[in-house]
Amino acid sequence: MKVGYIQFKPTFGEKEKNLRRIVGFLKQGAEKQADLLVLPELCNSGYVFRSEEEVKKLSEEVPEGQTTRALAGFAEEENLYIVAGLSERRDQRFFNSAVLVGPDGSTAVYRKAHLFNEEKLWFSEGPDPFRVYRTSNARIGMMICFDWIFPEVIRVLALEGAQIVCHPSNLVLPYCQKALLGAAIQNRVFIVTANRI
Amino acid sequence: MKVGYIQFKPTFGEKEKNLRRIVGFLKQGAEKQADLLVLPELCNSGYVFRSEEEVKKLSEEVPEGQTTRALAGFAEEENLYIVAGLSERRDQRFFNSAVLVGPDGSTAVYRKAHLFNEEKLWFSEGPDPFRVYRTSNARIGMMICFDWIFPEVIRVLALEGAQIVCHPSNLVLPYCQKALLGAAIQNRVFIVTANRI
Repeated sequence: MKVGYIQFKPTFGEKEKNLRRIVGFLKQGAEKQADLLVLPELCNSGYVFRSEEEVKKLSEEVPEGQTTRALAGFAEEENLYIVAGLSERRDQRFFNSAVLVGPDGSTAVYRKAHLFNEEKLWFSEGPDPFRVYRTSNARIGMMICFDWIFPEVIRVLALEGAQIVCHPSNLVLPYCQKALLGAAIQNRVFIVTANRI
Repeated sequence: MKVGYIQFKPTFGEKEKNLRRIVGFLKQGAEKQADLLVLPELCNSGYVFRSEEEVKKLSEEVPEGQTTRALAGFAEEENLYIVAGLSERRDQRFFNSAVLVGPDGSTAVYRKAHLFNEEKLWFSEGPDPFRVYRTSNARIGMMICFDWIFPEVIRVLALEGAQIVCHPSNLVLPYCQKALLGAAIQNRVFIVTANRI
């Protein structure tokens, strides 16, 4: 199984442009025979929201929204899995979410449980349990950025059977990159952090 | 508060010699005004047991044994705390234990829960919960070597209020030194690993 991660700097607010770049990066991953590609947190919108208006404008429903549809189409076409962070609108609320799309047309979503700093102004806390999804090659869990600092997240995913923890991120604090080496060993999982750089 | 750790290579089986060296190292720590000094796993006996005979001969009762008495006397004299690993005899069983001795004459003991490899030939698994002890300067927890790889150990100690996790070790695998950086951040504790070197 071949896993890749895509790190880049989305341009805030320019969803169409970001999505074009994302598809370009995904193509590079597909050419390298990746089975799974992980993208950063809020990778289609950018991270630094400054108003509720922006959140409303840049959020999408899952799986009906443009970004999820584009990613799902690509996953089907190229026979691979993609995990990507995006701003989700659902029942008048907004979530900092990650989607997992696969070649069978399935879509799973994880909503960030541990919001960081100003994210609390814009997003609701994810209410769902930490779940593991069986793909054709591996059992995959998702967490988003700041979730990492709560050891229960990776631990629960590992105990639920995850082999790979996909970790879309927009890291603000400087600790994660070194810190997760230990968490991966303690929990016997691979962790794929895809950071906005 | 000043914390020190003492790393050295005990000579297997030579308890008197090791204890003399340990007291010499402790004196250096005391001269530097340490409030807490941490020693390696099985620091008075050495680590590589090859027979039950050796385990019987080198184990001591706590707190009555020679090593604990010597450490406790030093702690009282120098007004500091010491955590040290030793082989404990208790009710016809043997434990890979750590003692915490303090200036008030108190002794606490932790018995290693997660025995590594051949340790299982010689020692019983520690049956006690992970406890935190209030010293004059900080709340202290103990774990021994391989315990580190189970994230629940540090997490439970942290949730029980530990500020410092003392970690007498004889590290065999190469992961711990880097891995615990993350566990310390995730759990917001200081971890003092004192390794046999």
